[in-house]
Amino acid sequence: MTYCAAIRLKDGMVFASDTRTNAGVDHISTFRKLYQYGIEGERVMVLQTAGSLATSQAVFTKLQHDIDQRYESNLNTVLTLFDAAQMVGECMRNVMNHAKTVANDDNGSQFTSSFMLGGQIKGQPPELYMIYPEGNCIRATKDTPFFQLGESKYGKPILDRSVTYDTDIQHAARALMLSFDSTIHSNLSVGMPIDFVIYKSDSLETPEGRRIDENDEYFNTIRRQWSKALRNILVELPEYPDNYWNK
Amino acid sequence: MTYCAAIRLKDGMVFASDTRTNAGVDHISTFRKLYQYGIEGERVMVLQTAGSLATSQAVFTKLQHDIDQRYESNLNTVLTLFDAAQMVGECMRNVMNHAKTVANDDNGSQFTSSFMLGGQIKGQPPELYMIYPEGNCIRATKDTPFFQLGESKYGKPILDRSVTYDTDIQHAARALMLSFDSTIHSNLSVGMPIDFVIYKSDSLETPEGRRIDENDEYFNTIRRQWSKALRNILVELPEYPDNYWNK
Repeated sequence: MTYCAAIRLKDGMVFASDTRTNAGVDHISTFRKLYQYGIEGERVMVLQTAGSLATSQAVFTKLQHDIDQRYESNLNTVLTLFDAAQMVGECMRNVMNHAKTVANDDNGSQFTSSFMLGGQIKGQPPELYMIYPEGNCIRATKDTPFFQLGESKYGKPILDRSVTYDTDIQHAARALMLSFDSTIHSNLSVGMPIDFVIYKSDSLETPEGRRIDENDEYFNTIRRQWSKALRNILVELPEYPDNYWNK
Repeated sequence: MTYCAAIRLKDGMVFASDTRTNAGVDHISTFRKLYQYGIEGERVMVLQTAGSLATSQAVFTKLQHDIDQRYESNLNTVLTLFDAAQMVGECMRNVMNHAKTVANDDNGSQFTSSFMLGGQIKGQPPELYMIYPEGNCIRATKDTPFFQLGESKYGKPILDRSVTYDTDIQHAARALMLSFDSTIHSNLSVGMPIDFVIYKSDSLETPEGRRIDENDEYFNTIRRQWSKALRNILVELPEYPDNYWNK
């Protein structure tokens, strides 16, 4: 499994992907599932994935190949981020259809991937897309500023409670770290390290990023403080009134 | 969908079940999914369910019918709680098999239910069982003191963090309320009111219970305080150090 999430805020974007892949509990490996594309000062794109690692890697490889070979249409030449999302979707459909043909398997659900693409092209607003296994996509809005892929449920409550479009980047980044902490705590199939990337709106600079591993001092500090504070709040909440039960 | 959970603690047990059922988003109804059985001073049982409402109701009905008709073997005559869990499992398998026969449908996944049974019989320790759709069951232990059914993921992190076998009943009950609050916040298919029941070990009294609805003053107080405190902690966590990113 995988957990990845991305948030589009007023002042920028925060992206995070774990790196655990597993096929059963015996085959556990570490693979990067977050990639960056772009041209400094002109366009920035961050692509995240969940699902079949073979499909996802083939898509990353094909997209990079098209850039390297300077094909007319690639992520560095598309006019809008929407076009880029469409390109990713089509590329994924091609990979999945090819895999099904090779496997001679009409079912082929094991080849399914999903993607999220966020970024900005000069002169246009920053955007974040969720690209479905069917190849189509939706865009994050002010009402719905974040998307998640994969093992998303454990980490959703904290984002639901604390992140809106107007949330400060620093706070949203911390909420996202704790969203990963909750998920890792409750689910074995999501694991460290986590690839974290922060993009500031209109900077058009390759975003800042960090691979957070088990020894990351800051991450461990806030996860400990968070965990302790949660337990403290719970203990300090008011006791239920007499005769509260039996009604 | 449904969310229900039960915790077996050193000093007692806490049970909670929501009451929303849905078939699609158009058919939303309120149904009790938590029932009590027992004989004051001799045995106490709390039965919770998730899954096909038709199967669950048929099981509740059959179990009550066997008690009312004073059949030799019923929940009021079984010797152990393990026997009671087996009885529930067998009853559920019979109902599911019958439904499949009537429907002439070998697939029959739509008839599946799961149950949790907790309680105590005089002279024996309190026990909590999870009864799988296959009819077999597992028992909660000191290492794993709680079980969940249905839409369990949103509400699991808070239980993972705050509940152990030695947790005070009052604290565990509050954690369970907040676990429901998180789930309802993040998922439309789980809804109020919530049936809550608390049993004190060795009391052998019909447990105290309360149906918590949207207007419950205490529940609303702690959910507001919790939500506010969470946001405060998040804001008060230390900022990340300079140069934390770009590594």
